[in-house]
Amino acid sequence: MKNDAFAEVMAHARQTVALEQVMGRLGWDQETMMPRGAAEQRGEEMAALEGILHARRSDPRLAGLLDAAEAPDPAAAAQLREVARGHSRAVKVPGTLAQEIARVTSVAQGIWAQARAAEDVAAFLPTLAEVVRLKREEGAALAQGGDAYDALVDDYEPGMTGADIAAMFGAMRPRLVALRERILGSGRQPKPLDGSFSADSQMRLARDLAGAFGYDWSRGRLDMAVHPFSSGSGHDVRITTRVSEADPFNCFYSTIHEVGHAAYEQGVDPDYLLTPIGKGVSMGVHESQSRIYENQLGRSRAFTGWLHGQMRERFGEFGIASADDFFATVNRVQPGFIRTESDEVHYNLHIMMRFDLERALMRGDLQVADLQAAWNDRFKADFGVAVDRPSHGMLQDVHWSVGLFGYFPTYSLGNVYAGCLHKALRADQPGLDADLARGDLSAATGWLREKVQRHGALYEPRQVIAQAIGTQPSEVPLLEYLETKFGQIYGL
Amino acid sequence: MKNDAFAEVMAHARQTVALEQVMGRLGWDQETMMPRGAAEQRGEEMAALEGILHARRSDPRLAGLLDAAEAPDPAAAAQLREVARGHSRAVKVPGTLAQEIARVTSVAQGIWAQARAAEDVAAFLPTLAEVVRLKREEGAALAQGGDAYDALVDDYEPGMTGADIAAMFGAMRPRLVALRERILGSGRQPKPLDGSFSADSQMRLARDLAGAFGYDWSRGRLDMAVHPFSSGSGHDVRITTRVSEADPFNCFYSTIHEVGHAAYEQGVDPDYLLTPIGKGVSMGVHESQSRIYENQLGRSRAFTGWLHGQMRERFGEFGIASADDFFATVNRVQPGFIRTESDEVHYNLHIMMRFDLERALMRGDLQVADLQAAWNDRFKADFGVAVDRPSHGMLQDVHWSVGLFGYFPTYSLGNVYAGCLHKALRADQPGLDADLARGDLSAATGWLREKVQRHGALYEPRQVIAQAIGTQPSEVPLLEYLETKFGQIYGL
Repeated sequence: MKNDAFAEVMAHARQTVALEQVMGRLGWDQETMMPRGAAEQRGEEMAALEGILHARRSDPRLAGLLDAAEAPDPAAAAQLREVARGHSRAVKVPGTLAQEIARVTSVAQGIWAQARAAEDVAAFLPTLAEVVRLKREEGAALAQGGDAYDALVDDYEPGMTGADIAAMFGAMRPRLVALRERILGSGRQPKPLDGSFSADSQMRLARDLAGAFGYDWSRGRLDMAVHPFSSGSGHDVRITTRVSEADPFNCFYSTIHEVGHAAYEQGVDPDYLLTPIGKGVSMGVHESQSRIYENQLGRSRAFTGWLHGQMRERFGEFGIASADDFFATVNRVQPGFIRTESDEVHYNLHIMMRFDLERALMRGDLQVADLQAAWNDRFKADFGVAVDRPSHGMLQDVHWSVGLFGYFPTYSLGNVYAGCLHKALRADQPGLDADLARGDLSAATGWLREKVQRHGALYEPRQVIAQAIGTQPSEVPLLEYLETKFGQIYGL
Repeated sequence: MKNDAFAEVMAHARQTVALEQVMGRLGWDQETMMPRGAAEQRGEEMAALEGILHARRSDPRLAGLLDAAEAPDPAAAAQLREVARGHSRAVKVPGTLAQEIARVTSVAQGIWAQARAAEDVAAFLPTLAEVVRLKREEGAALAQGGDAYDALVDDYEPGMTGADIAAMFGAMRPRLVALRERILGSGRQPKPLDGSFSADSQMRLARDLAGAFGYDWSRGRLDMAVHPFSSGSGHDVRITTRVSEADPFNCFYSTIHEVGHAAYEQGVDPDYLLTPIGKGVSMGVHESQSRIYENQLGRSRAFTGWLHGQMRERFGEFGIASADDFFATVNRVQPGFIRTESDEVHYNLHIMMRFDLERALMRGDLQVADLQAAWNDRFKADFGVAVDRPSHGMLQDVHWSVGLFGYFPTYSLGNVYAGCLHKALRADQPGLDADLARGDLSAATGWLREKVQRHGALYEPRQVIAQAIGTQPSEVPLLEYLETKFGQIYGL
């Protein structure tokens, strides 16, 4: 009887997970393939599917089945935990609201993209106001008297609150600001990359990089997107990148970053395929994989030495002859407008700013009409530069247009977790740099697969990291890594 | 009360139609973008969505609502007719069977493609046997004691039966066979196309052809597929084509053909968007649009004259200097193995053969194990040539692998309808050839949009054709068109 209930929950969940994959595919299509004129219709299609998903997750039968179900083992217990989490969230949010959010955010994305291209904040504000209104409503429904922003964060990072994040940022900020000041005051600045790098050659190298980092092409593909992302779980995990002929690092490190996300999904134990735990457990843990692939591995001295050789082979001499200089160029620190292009030192300062702004928006302390001024003031204060155009300011990121409030802080959490994992990986693999220096990532990515990726959502987010590193995660390893690395590059 | 019921039916149907569009998008993705390793997972995803669609279509609430609903106008009556049709079919088929068919056919498609590439019939037979078993079961469930094949045909061509098709073929076959004999006995044979035509230039011209035939790029896109198809309704109607450097006509006429299908979907009255009648009414009427675009317009003497000039401009001299010779080359008649590459005279003979074979399979008069022998015997008898390899024989078409039994005859019905429409169009537009000769298709496609496309599924299939041509459709105009055209080319 109890086992019947468990089997019924799993059969129900399997269909739901399959439909979630379909939803993910629609999102991928919208960003890569969809004709422009299809935006409104796609909004309705996604709303219809969201209605189905919401009805399944909030299915009244589930409550009874979850009560009756008994888990035969820890994996089964984790399955029930994930189904219960989805059910408990879904029953708090009216289906009409869930559908409305799906419809509005699907269409809002296109409006944001057009407004960004036109540098036209006013064209985006009514839509953003609508998204903010709907997400506040959802947050309030989920929070049931508690903090709306916390309730939204919990969707991306179960167990995390705005206060936890604020505390983490409180510990990180002074050391990051101090590091930044010392770097910018050092009088040193590595040579920037100069010249033009053919898009075709970039894409060929990007594909080779993806392969080197373990991307399984038989279960994925690489396309272009304005805002690179990874999408899907199990046997269909697609990545996207972008190409600028002046800045090949954008293409290479976007690709490596997305391969990190994809490797997590592709690396989950195949037994969990199309089950609730058959996917990354949280956005923070997800970002830990993309970040360690991109930064601690991809931007290391050892790996950039190998990449330098690859670039010289493929593009000829491009003005940076020494591997040490190339390492410094790849890791150049400078205040820039764009989060996704920022260096490791500035990156978390971008996130802290977005965290404060979006938390204020969700709490009603900041109005959409005042967002641009608030953004620009804060940016000037934190980065010492005035925003020169909206696409360099509040229009740069897609997130808010698609309703991702509470998502940004998981990027910093991912950096923190990546710092922890990197420290543990180095302790376990004394030969790491020798591997990286010849472009061999198999041992490092194998370690991450074994310690983190294969578990999917078997363990809670903090738990999977704690088990992997053998201690509680903290921001200290990340800060030490940054101080050491940039201290060396800038001779501090 | 009655109007409330109608509004409720329509609200219910709108979500169903939106989800059907999602299903169509998954099918498109599977054929154009999906990584190979994702086939099994995609099967489960499609089965999950089919389960949702089946549950919606067979929703017990619908029966009561349909009884209570009153249509305020003819369009509303057509909406109710379409919903009732879907409901009546769905309640006869168990949901588990519908899901199983979706899962098996999704996976079968990949198995077919691999078997075809490997020329390995044995590798395909177990899967085909499974598909045949499931479709027979579905046919029996739908037929409720009647003919299973008729019940399947009715899904693609409402109102049509196997007997109707057999009668139509009975009237066509002697005149087609006689025409074929006279052509092959004429001693004439137009020069075949020779040389190599760059894939890039082909695709550029294919895009221009799509535009000339009225394809709306803001609501569609063109990709490559092994088996060209059109997919989607309303504001997202995508087409596919293929390219062979030795045979540019394959690319050009596949593209024009799919544009015909897409123009039908894009041309439906926008008021019907995401409603049950907001799509082509049947596969036969659909094929009438693709065929008249491709053949009666695209392979006409006037239009090929224009195309000849375009090809000479883009590819230089390619060995056919006169427009009359080019017209003959485009319309070259010869017995070939491949249906999709066959000329207008042989085309319907291919279909007749498939009709007899698939009808026998569905009725249990032919076993899957005997299919290859039956195919090869029949082909030799009808075409005078022995099948030399499976990809030229029973493995050439995707249809049976995806469960499309009862679909093939709609191709011939489409040809017959195209013949009728062409006759009426010529009567209405004395200047047609002058337009075509300068590559201007706007009047012709405008006429088809006005007479057929804009109505979507407002009228029953035969009715929309009868209204367009002012009389009952018959195979006679098609046969007369073929006899005249090929009589002229072959000097009969």
